[in-house]
Amino acid sequence: MPVNLNPPVAALPVAGVSLGFAQANIKRENRKDLLVIGLCGGARVAGVFTKNRFCAAPVIVAREHLATGNSIRALVVNTGNANAGTGDQGLADAQSTCAALAGLLGCQATQILPFSTGVIMEPLPVAKIAAGLPAAVANMSEDNWLNAAEAIMTTDIVAKAISRQVIIDGVTVTITGIAKGSGMIHPNMATMLGYIATDAGLSQPLLQQLVTEAANRSFNCITVDGDTSTNDSLMLIATGKSLLPEITSVDSTAYGALLDAISEVAIYLAQAIVRDGEGATKFITIKIEGGRDEDECRKIGYAIAHSPLVKTAFFASDPNLGRILAAIGYAGVDDLDVAALQLYLDDVLVAEHGGRASSYSEADGQRVMQQSDITIRVVLNRGGVNATLWTCDFSYDYVKINASYRS
Amino acid sequence: MPVNLNPPVAALPVAGVSLGFAQANIKRENRKDLLVIGLCGGARVAGVFTKNRFCAAPVIVAREHLATGNSIRALVVNTGNANAGTGDQGLADAQSTCAALAGLLGCQATQILPFSTGVIMEPLPVAKIAAGLPAAVANMSEDNWLNAAEAIMTTDIVAKAISRQVIIDGVTVTITGIAKGSGMIHPNMATMLGYIATDAGLSQPLLQQLVTEAANRSFNCITVDGDTSTNDSLMLIATGKSLLPEITSVDSTAYGALLDAISEVAIYLAQAIVRDGEGATKFITIKIEGGRDEDECRKIGYAIAHSPLVKTAFFASDPNLGRILAAIGYAGVDDLDVAALQLYLDDVLVAEHGGRASSYSEADGQRVMQQSDITIRVVLNRGGVNATLWTCDFSYDYVKINASYRS
Repeated sequence: MPVNLNPPVAALPVAGVSLGFAQANIKRENRKDLLVIGLCGGARVAGVFTKNRFCAAPVIVAREHLATGNSIRALVVNTGNANAGTGDQGLADAQSTCAALAGLLGCQATQILPFSTGVIMEPLPVAKIAAGLPAAVANMSEDNWLNAAEAIMTTDIVAKAISRQVIIDGVTVTITGIAKGSGMIHPNMATMLGYIATDAGLSQPLLQQLVTEAANRSFNCITVDGDTSTNDSLMLIATGKSLLPEITSVDSTAYGALLDAISEVAIYLAQAIVRDGEGATKFITIKIEGGRDEDECRKIGYAIAHSPLVKTAFFASDPNLGRILAAIGYAGVDDLDVAALQLYLDDVLVAEHGGRASSYSEADGQRVMQQSDITIRVVLNRGGVNATLWTCDFSYDYVKINASYRS
Repeated sequence: MPVNLNPPVAALPVAGVSLGFAQANIKRENRKDLLVIGLCGGARVAGVFTKNRFCAAPVIVAREHLATGNSIRALVVNTGNANAGTGDQGLADAQSTCAALAGLLGCQATQILPFSTGVIMEPLPVAKIAAGLPAAVANMSEDNWLNAAEAIMTTDIVAKAISRQVIIDGVTVTITGIAKGSGMIHPNMATMLGYIATDAGLSQPLLQQLVTEAANRSFNCITVDGDTSTNDSLMLIATGKSLLPEITSVDSTAYGALLDAISEVAIYLAQAIVRDGEGATKFITIKIEGGRDEDECRKIGYAIAHSPLVKTAFFASDPNLGRILAAIGYAGVDDLDVAALQLYLDDVLVAEHGGRASSYSEADGQRVMQQSDITIRVVLNRGGVNATLWTCDFSYDYVKINASYRS
């Protein structure tokens, strides 16, 4: 079961965004597997995409359509098939999906952004998607955010949705986001899709800047550029339907307040993906402090986060904490003085001076390891830069889920 | 059970090398856990060690003792405790172990090389080791290679030993090697220790060059510099007891013949470690061909080898081969043209032109996936460099073994 993560009970509508869903039987029967996100005129969209060289056909098409500068009228998301590793036919299939929806909405195909998640290297069943689209368009509503969160789930156990309201310059601004993903930390996570909408208005360059900054504070702390799945995408929609004047300067207090609020939504969604990690039983925060630069902090954090030996020890609630030291040692920071660092498990000092701390007791380690939320903190004592990552443990069920995913 | 790996039935003595073992009860009762490898006068030793910044105390001490230039008279190996992450006390404990053995053998402590494998960050039980050494010294014999292979096992299921004889310049030269290790591919493998001895004689610089070259052809194809456990070590002993004149030139045919024979032994041992990988059910050879340089070939190979999604698909015998394409895509080769490469599973062409090959059938993929030995071949078509790696699949039992290792 997900680690300290409950299904969402409500999500606020965002003026100018309506959502429709359908059961298109793309891979399985009797489940929502198709989502249309319709946008009002004047809405703007920006996004960050996977840097995987084998990026999926819909990623290529969505980037192209955004680059036209045409106003985007809808996003369409299918589960059950990733349309990745599908070559030229995959591109044609993604375009066909856009054309089918454009026909229903009375716009150009280039005003549609396509997204897919599911099995790789199987042809996209375009006919099923096209057949499902009329039903999705027919039930479009601003109140469908929770249905939308369910419609994009694959191996997710829990739907992921959250809303925040923030008062900016005296005006209430609404932000609602949904995401899907149920994976370990990069580079092996299942596809991560995120859609966040606000009724604030931003110029296109500012919107792009904001989604990039928010991703760096959230989804990029569970993954990193260049090390992502074939389909990962985070999209930010700004409808401008609130009474707040359009934000046009990065130095405005409005931009800063909106960035913080959207980042909060993005962090919730990113952490929810980890909490719903395949087979996860523990949520682990990794803080690297006192590094010389961001790069070395992240290298050390990811070495810990990726180590199956560390992750299985956390699954076993076994304070076999030498495995963390070994991971720090092979992280690739060549001039690291291991005698100068401290390792903490929550409030417990575990290691210093290159070995176990004299104050450490197995009982203290055991106590922390029993928790479902645990923080590993490494203090490098060589600079002023910090970094935080989130990951989960590694259980029998991870293997079970991923050994049987296709069947 | 190990993948196509049987226990060794014989190993040839190497003149000048005698091996003694004991049950020192370091972590568990009633098992061999202490090994002494005694060397004749004039024997030379060279080695390659982990580059982990948290390298274990015995690694530091062994390097120091080798650097003195003193002749090495013995190696001592304990299981049950890695003496890693143990700070200054760990260094003192490794030195004490050397001193205890030196006292028994009548030599200097700097003529002893110490090695440890087992749990990290626990104090080394020096008293138990010292108490076990007399028994190990007492049963030293040139015929003890198989006992020695058993004495260094930790989570290994099968002991690893092999001998080769090769005729060089009309003289029969003997090579025998043992290794321990039962892990996944780097950076998460259990400690890997390897000891190879030959009765050929080499100058010290040539011996160092040979062990480095042999490691690059073997153990470094299951791990890489800088990404190793705290204790990994490969040692090469040359006693000079054969009738072959000392090899002093890298350009001699004798050097080339000996390098090939020792590499063959090292490759067997390295592959045996993978075949005995924790919970392994499949042995996977990864060949990257037609790359621009070694670095990009290895990056792609390791991205495939490290992917839990790829490894669990192989465990399930499920030709979910899109996961291999995704791993190639995030390997970090930024200018890779994914449409130009071919992916093969044994003799079956799986993907080309950025998608599934038109000739591919699920039945063909299934047939190969049922095998216990499988080759993944990626033809990049952008240069003339190839690289080969070996790894194993990822099963329920991997998690089980590593979640319970300390208990």
